[in-house]
Amino acid sequence: MPVNLNLAPGIAIDNIGLAPIAAGIKSDGSPDLLLVQLPDGSTCAGVFTKNVFCAAPVTVAKNHLNESKGAIRAMLINSGNANAGTGEPGIAMAHKHCAATANALGIDTEQVLPFSTGVIGQLLPDDIMLKGIEIASQSMGADWNAAARSIMTTDTEPKLTSRQVSIDGETITITGMAKGAGMIQPNMATMLSYIFTDAAINKAHLQKALEESVATSFNSITVDSDTSTNDACMLVATSEKSALSPAHKEWGVFMQALSAVALDLAQAIVRDAEGATKFITVHVTGGADTEQCKTVAYAIANSPLVKTAMFASDANVGRLLMAIGKTEIEQLKPEDIRVSIGDVCAFEDSGIAHGYTEERGAAVMSEPEITITVDLGLGDASAKVYTSDLSHDYVSVNADYRS
Amino acid sequence: MPVNLNLAPGIAIDNIGLAPIAAGIKSDGSPDLLLVQLPDGSTCAGVFTKNVFCAAPVTVAKNHLNESKGAIRAMLINSGNANAGTGEPGIAMAHKHCAATANALGIDTEQVLPFSTGVIGQLLPDDIMLKGIEIASQSMGADWNAAARSIMTTDTEPKLTSRQVSIDGETITITGMAKGAGMIQPNMATMLSYIFTDAAINKAHLQKALEESVATSFNSITVDSDTSTNDACMLVATSEKSALSPAHKEWGVFMQALSAVALDLAQAIVRDAEGATKFITVHVTGGADTEQCKTVAYAIANSPLVKTAMFASDANVGRLLMAIGKTEIEQLKPEDIRVSIGDVCAFEDSGIAHGYTEERGAAVMSEPEITITVDLGLGDASAKVYTSDLSHDYVSVNADYRS
Repeated sequence: MPVNLNLAPGIAIDNIGLAPIAAGIKSDGSPDLLLVQLPDGSTCAGVFTKNVFCAAPVTVAKNHLNESKGAIRAMLINSGNANAGTGEPGIAMAHKHCAATANALGIDTEQVLPFSTGVIGQLLPDDIMLKGIEIASQSMGADWNAAARSIMTTDTEPKLTSRQVSIDGETITITGMAKGAGMIQPNMATMLSYIFTDAAINKAHLQKALEESVATSFNSITVDSDTSTNDACMLVATSEKSALSPAHKEWGVFMQALSAVALDLAQAIVRDAEGATKFITVHVTGGADTEQCKTVAYAIANSPLVKTAMFASDANVGRLLMAIGKTEIEQLKPEDIRVSIGDVCAFEDSGIAHGYTEERGAAVMSEPEITITVDLGLGDASAKVYTSDLSHDYVSVNADYRS
Repeated sequence: MPVNLNLAPGIAIDNIGLAPIAAGIKSDGSPDLLLVQLPDGSTCAGVFTKNVFCAAPVTVAKNHLNESKGAIRAMLINSGNANAGTGEPGIAMAHKHCAATANALGIDTEQVLPFSTGVIGQLLPDDIMLKGIEIASQSMGADWNAAARSIMTTDTEPKLTSRQVSIDGETITITGMAKGAGMIQPNMATMLSYIFTDAAINKAHLQKALEESVATSFNSITVDSDTSTNDACMLVATSEKSALSPAHKEWGVFMQALSAVALDLAQAIVRDAEGATKFITVHVTGGADTEQCKTVAYAIANSPLVKTAMFASDANVGRLLMAIGKTEIEQLKPEDIRVSIGDVCAFEDSGIAHGYTEERGAAVMSEPEITITVDLGLGDASAKVYTSDLSHDYVSVNADYRS
């Protein structure tokens, strides 16, 4: 059961074709292939995993994005098999499936981006993929909910949401979908996420907009500190509506909406994290710089002892102090640090806060949404990281994944 | 149930007094205070946690070790309360208890080292400690097993072992005890460990010997990536036997025995780790330097997805590749990396190894002791890190710790 997962509904973007099908990659017959067709004139930007063992489709997608100068016309996404750890045969397979897609849709091979998610270390089933591409290319529709569902792996709910803004009297829509529930500590990208807008934005500006919105959303979440081999986040502008750029006076309005979609999707991944019973915001303030704040926030968010305490609704201040301290950041001085659990100050002046009781802490910790605030007392920077707790179900999901 | 925890028996060191008592710090009445009395002429070396929130006794022990120039005569160790996150009142308390111990034993206050382990964020019960010190100072004995038992917290078994070597026709004994089962990724130290020898070694050489033996033992283990606020590892030479120094031709024999005691105790902590069902050795070879090998080894050993796969006896090669790759070490090239599960080669030449099957991997993974070997193909350095799996019991132990 996801923790308070209530996304604003997804709104269709005109002239984007979606073909989610059950190709037969997953053994249980659930949807596992999504072909996305983009209108001519679309621009595309992307951020990808930094994992050394990045999957074959990641390598091919990066190349195609460069070669086509962002003029992408199709995205081929499969779940159930990650095509990672598959070497040259995996790369050849991803190429072949892009070529088949290009052929079916009458576009160039480098205008197709491949994405895969699922089990690592197995080659994709070639025949099933080719057959799936053929069927999908002939069944383009506009069912966005079904599309979001077809890219799921251990997710329990599809993740799809939208924002609309009015710019120059025109309604601009931003609609995104994402998948991911485990192996989540993205770096410059997340699991798989696809965000679309009908505005017209050139590739360079689109890339900048994506990186800015990802920093505070997909790059600020963690479930288990593990970074996937297949992470990718793409932003597509179909150019159906007016042109936008950072020079436009309403660019900030657009960016705010884009960041909201990205943040909602990133938080949705944490809310639906494997075994999650709590949604936890770690807010670190008073840092010398943002990176320092993120280091402390991730140390707390990734600590198994903090995460099990969250699961137990245990207001264990000691584990929070331990996690802050293990960063070994030399500037940190215990006497300057203030820790709050929700609105309850738990630690200040080098000791447990006056008037703090475990009962007051536990009252906050028993809620499904918990905010831990740490003031480092060093400067003006701040950062937020979102995470889930470590429960028995996390162990069950990950110990029984393939059985 | 610890995993294959079979230590060589502990051998008493002459003229060390031990008084393990139940002072009443722990509510269940189990032993919780150990007073160790060392003979005149003893030298002492120590390594301590680098956690920013290091506990009051760590600060005081470091100061006393310097002020006494290593001429330590007593160690006061309590379990059940860590005296951490307690600010100046905690420091004052640790001082007061050292003074009371010194007074009872007729030595100087700075010749007493305090150590605490247990719950963080609570002041020590002063009356109980003072009464305990009084009782303990009058009941010195030589029960080493009871001493090792009295420093336990979530440990299920006491950890005590010895080695003896013959140097210049004289038998030199090295006996160590340790406690720890969670909050374990020591940095320059471990949980609490006390190693004693009857040789005569000056403070500088003793410190060097300790740091050397700790690097490949207590600083090469992880249970949950969390570094305690109270870690300390002490090495005492009582000087009852002959003098040793690095210039002595048999120094290597002594160091080998000391390292064996440290490694056995460090591995014992992992074998008795919270919820452990497997003992896992991650052996990284072919690295550019030792630090690089340790980075990769810890990335694997700390990955919740690898640890749950171990618990499930799941030969999940993909999770191993993910963990290696998430280190983002730029030099790493998938085509140079070789991964073996036990003796079974699972990944080489950028893909799953020829002849590898999940059945062959799973046969290794179902054993209680598993070695994962990763050859980075870059150089001649290597490192070993020891860890446990992530089980339902780990969650239970840490979610129910204080209830």
